[in-house]
Amino acid sequence: MSQPAPRHSVTQLPQHNHRLQLSSPPVLSDPLAERLHRKQRLAAGYRLFAELGFEVGLAGHFTARDPIEPDHYWINPLGVPFSQIRSRDLLRVNGEGEVVEGDGLLNTSALELHYELQRARPDVVGIAHLHGFHGRVWSSLGQLFQPITAESSAFVGEQVLFDRHALRNADGTLLQDRDAVAQAFVETFAEHNLLVWQNHGLWTTGQTVESAAWRFILADDTARAHLLAYAAGQPRIPQQAESVSTPAQRELFGWLNFLPLWDRVVQQQPDLLD
Amino acid sequence: MSQPAPRHSVTQLPQHNHRLQLSSPPVLSDPLAERLHRKQRLAAGYRLFAELGFEVGLAGHFTARDPIEPDHYWINPLGVPFSQIRSRDLLRVNGEGEVVEGDGLLNTSALELHYELQRARPDVVGIAHLHGFHGRVWSSLGQLFQPITAESSAFVGEQVLFDRHALRNADGTLLQDRDAVAQAFVETFAEHNLLVWQNHGLWTTGQTVESAAWRFILADDTARAHLLAYAAGQPRIPQQAESVSTPAQRELFGWLNFLPLWDRVVQQQPDLLD
Amino acid sequence: MSQPAPRHSVTQLPQHNHRLQLSSPPVLSDPLAERLHRKQRLAAGYRLFAELGFEVGLAGHFTARDPIEPDHYWINPLGVPFSQIRSRDLLRVNGEGEVVEGDGLLNTSALELHYELQRARPDVVGIAHLHGFHGRVWSSLGQLFQPITAESSAFVGEQVLFDRHALRNADGTLLQDRDAVAQAFVETFAEHNLLVWQNHGLWTTGQTVESAAWRFILADDTARAHLLAYAAGQPRIPQQAESVSTPAQRELFGWLNFLPLWDRVVQQQPDLLD
Amino acid sequence: MSQPAPRHSVTQLPQHNHRLQLSSPPVLSDPLAERLHRKQRLAAGYRLFAELGFEVGLAGHFTARDPIEPDHYWINPLGVPFSQIRSRDLLRVNGEGEVVEGDGLLNTSALELHYELQRARPDVVGIAHLHGFHGRVWSSLGQLFQPITAESSAFVGEQVLFDRHALRNADGTLLQDRDAVAQAFVETFAEHNLLVWQNHGLWTTGQTVESAAWRFILADDTARAHLLAYAAGQPRIPQQAESVSTPAQRELFGWLNFLPLWDRVVQQQPDLLD
Repeated sequence: MSQPAPRHSVTQLPQHNHRLQLSSPPVLSDPLAERLHRKQRLAAGYRLFAELGFEVGLAGHFTARDPIEPDHYWINPLGVPFSQIRSRDLLRVNGEGEVVEGDGLLNTSALELHYELQRARPDVVGIAHLHGFHGRVWSSLGQLFQPITAESSAFVGEQVLFDRHALRNADGTLLQDRDAVAQAFVETFAEHNLLVWQNHGLWTTGQTVESAAWRFILADDTARAHLLAYAAGQPRIPQQAESVSTPAQRELFGWLNFLPLWDRVVQQQPDLLD
Repeated sequence: MSQPAPRHSVTQLPQHNHRLQLSSPPVLSDPLAERLHRKQRLAAGYRLFAELGFEVGLAGHFTARDPIEPDHYWINPLGVPFSQIRSRDLLRVNGEGEVVEGDGLLNTSALELHYELQRARPDVVGIAHLHGFHGRVWSSLGQLFQPITAESSAFVGEQVLFDRHALRNADGTLLQDRDAVAQAFVETFAEHNLLVWQNHGLWTTGQTVESAAWRFILADDTARAHLLAYAAGQPRIPQQAESVSTPAQRELFGWLNFLPLWDRVVQQQPDLLD
Repeated sequence: MSQPAPRHSVTQLPQHNHRLQLSSPPVLSDPLAERLHRKQRLAAGYRLFAELGFEVGLAGHFTARDPIEPDHYWINPLGVPFSQIRSRDLLRVNGEGEVVEGDGLLNTSALELHYELQRARPDVVGIAHLHGFHGRVWSSLGQLFQPITAESSAFVGEQVLFDRHALRNADGTLLQDRDAVAQAFVETFAEHNLLVWQNHGLWTTGQTVESAAWRFILADDTARAHLLAYAAGQPRIPQQAESVSTPAQRELFGWLNFLPLWDRVVQQQPDLLD
Repeated sequence: MSQPAPRHSVTQLPQHNHRLQLSSPPVLSDPLAERLHRKQRLAAGYRLFAELGFEVGLAGHFTARDPIEPDHYWINPLGVPFSQIRSRDLLRVNGEGEVVEGDGLLNTSALELHYELQRARPDVVGIAHLHGFHGRVWSSLGQLFQPITAESSAFVGEQVLFDRHALRNADGTLLQDRDAVAQAFVETFAEHNLLVWQNHGLWTTGQTVESAAWRFILADDTARAHLLAYAAGQPRIPQQAESVSTPAQRELFGWLNFLPLWDRVVQQQPDLLD
């Protein structure tokens, strides 16, 4: 049923003397191949999010910029269970919020957030906002992550808090204008890769679909770590990270960490490639 | 083994330009088809509750008003594992607590609660009371939900606390008269869709089987969110919801959110339709 | 492979007008059939404990008094994974700690505790001590359960705390004599059905294998409920139970609540009957 | 596909009168058989760690000293999902960090830690460092385990805390020299079997692959126990262990407790033996 698809298993990466030889994720020269690559990683991401319990009814969206029409993005069809999403089920949406490719219902709740964020950040390909349990709960405390573990440290300097309830009209009522909210969201996000939307949940970005997905998985895990650590006591906060890295290194690292998950889920659920 | 059953997958909903065109859940004109519709959603609900760990021995009941005899309701046979319940296993019960259709043992622990609540609330079709872990634990704290997340906000204005231990006879002993307890229960419930029975657990209602089931699943998740948030710190409480909705919109929203779960469980366990 | 075995599914219980007609668990007149009945429930119990994560390496034992030689009991062979235990794998042990039927290694860590407890309690058939996570953790707090939920209420008046570290020799050192520890254990247990061994875990008893197993499952769940409730806040403690019951009713209730679990696990893993 | 492999199921251990007759884990006289034995237990350990959720992207390494070249060790290929690792996938690494047997990418993040620890501890065969959730979170609190349960007691006297952030250069900046960090790590570890790397996670050692794996599983479970106990209240700390044991007994005990896990995982996933 499924065609052999391009894979980027860790075992196929360029290496020398058993050491990885790669400074950034490989780019496919054929735009159509790159499109398929992104769509399949998007579908794999939804499958993984389903396993992790990140699906809450109709909520959640994970998008990928199209490599051919860079102001278009791919998104899941509303209401199709994450565990059943295949590459061909995805919808391509343009800047007017119109579906230009694919069948299915469109989730209109956050169209302008994805669009405006991709427009403001030419480096960004993947944007993830799922309703993972621990990210939602942590967001209610209105705090950023502390470097309490090696995993948490990855977010230091990459994260920002967004208090949507602080957006008010002149008369003090809550701002409801969607374009203005989107504008504030994008300005707050700025160049970060994790946004904690207070009393709502997490958003992550990545220069690849893979790194955006990995950051989201790691951010929900980090939220859980904070919830348990602070319930049990007072974590110690190191003043300095064990190791420092550049933005490019962090992108590569996020991309690499997604690969074992990709390899496993594709082996177990090859229909996602369809 | 199982006959093709009417389905209401999200993919089959009326839509225009990839947008949902629906202001309320569709109603089946054939009463027998509507009866089957409700019974199958009830069976699917039990399967989902089993997955979510909401089954505790013999405890729990989830009922649907019959569309033909509106003072009758359908309920699970006592002691049949939730994970094995099929549509045809359900019992139809009348106002005298007699089984008028179906085979199996009747759970008599809450007959009058379901009956009286349906009598007092002609709009209600589904009533759910399962012993989900987090709902039980949260109920012991004797508090309502706060809008700490988007999901929690759905219960603001829709919930009420019931302190059954405050029901006393004139001599101060605990009220044991079942009819009087049922009356107090119904009066407390009033027009809400979530009742927190202190030191016991959660009850939800809906104008459809689907919305009652979804509210129960979301309420147990919300209980878990509160338990973890308050263990870790002090959540921030927004003074105003991000978005406001009418009761009819909330009903439609609850109904819609159940659909991905329905689609998945019917695909994985089609015998529930039998 | 497996022979048809006597089953006591809820659907086969005596009933009238869809109401259960039973005041105590049925007793099989044929002692050999009763022996097989107990062994199969024991094996099913181990399978369920495996599912629930109650297996920790070699730890844990769940025993059933033999109906023919009432000072003998049946126990699991040490080191066989709980998820693989079949009826025929069980060992029969006499009062001298000798295996008189069955093959396999004997867990000698608690022989005298099971034996002395069964000797002191002629009513007891099943005794369960597994290293379930939440029971272990709760035991470290050195407290009994409070009636914070309906499930917790089942243990009020049925539970006792055992502080093994308070057993001291005249010189203040910890008592190591195994017979003396067993004697103190039995005296503390007295007529209760739940013993909280401080800094160790839970023990439950029952007049049937089924009720002992159900009490253990419910006790570990209750421990989890207490841990989460007290982490999140201060639970409210009702002064009076919603309903009162006799010891015979509680035995029947425990036995009944095990049946849905039995029905499911036998259907899914029929090799346990072998 | 898989060849029959040497097994050490509990059911095959030397016994007399249903009692285990063994004072230390059996050693295979054929070095090649011992090498295969270790590699297969290593692969089984990765499979179990995957089940337990200890895999976090590319993180984690579990090594076994080679019995033929005792300054070489076996390690997993970087990025292969733990759930898919087979015996033949493992890499053999020498003291220069070169792969001398096997194909795949090498995880260079901790080469010198494994090597120097094995060099300093001739008794050690297995070394485990996985990113299990609860061990990571507990490490952020900067504390050792207390004997709050029987399981926790196993670590008393066997554990040490390592504060890597306290390693500073003369100018106060964080020490980055890898050899110096490795030296401090080995000196801190000393003769213990559990090291809590503050703000990072857990390390365990064993004289067998099995005992190192069991200690790691038990240590992560113990971390979870501490997190929940301290969130809920104040655990009571016994002044004296229920039973005392020698290091040799603890090694045997750890080895034995791994066997039920081994038996189960080999039955369910025999391809790990390949």
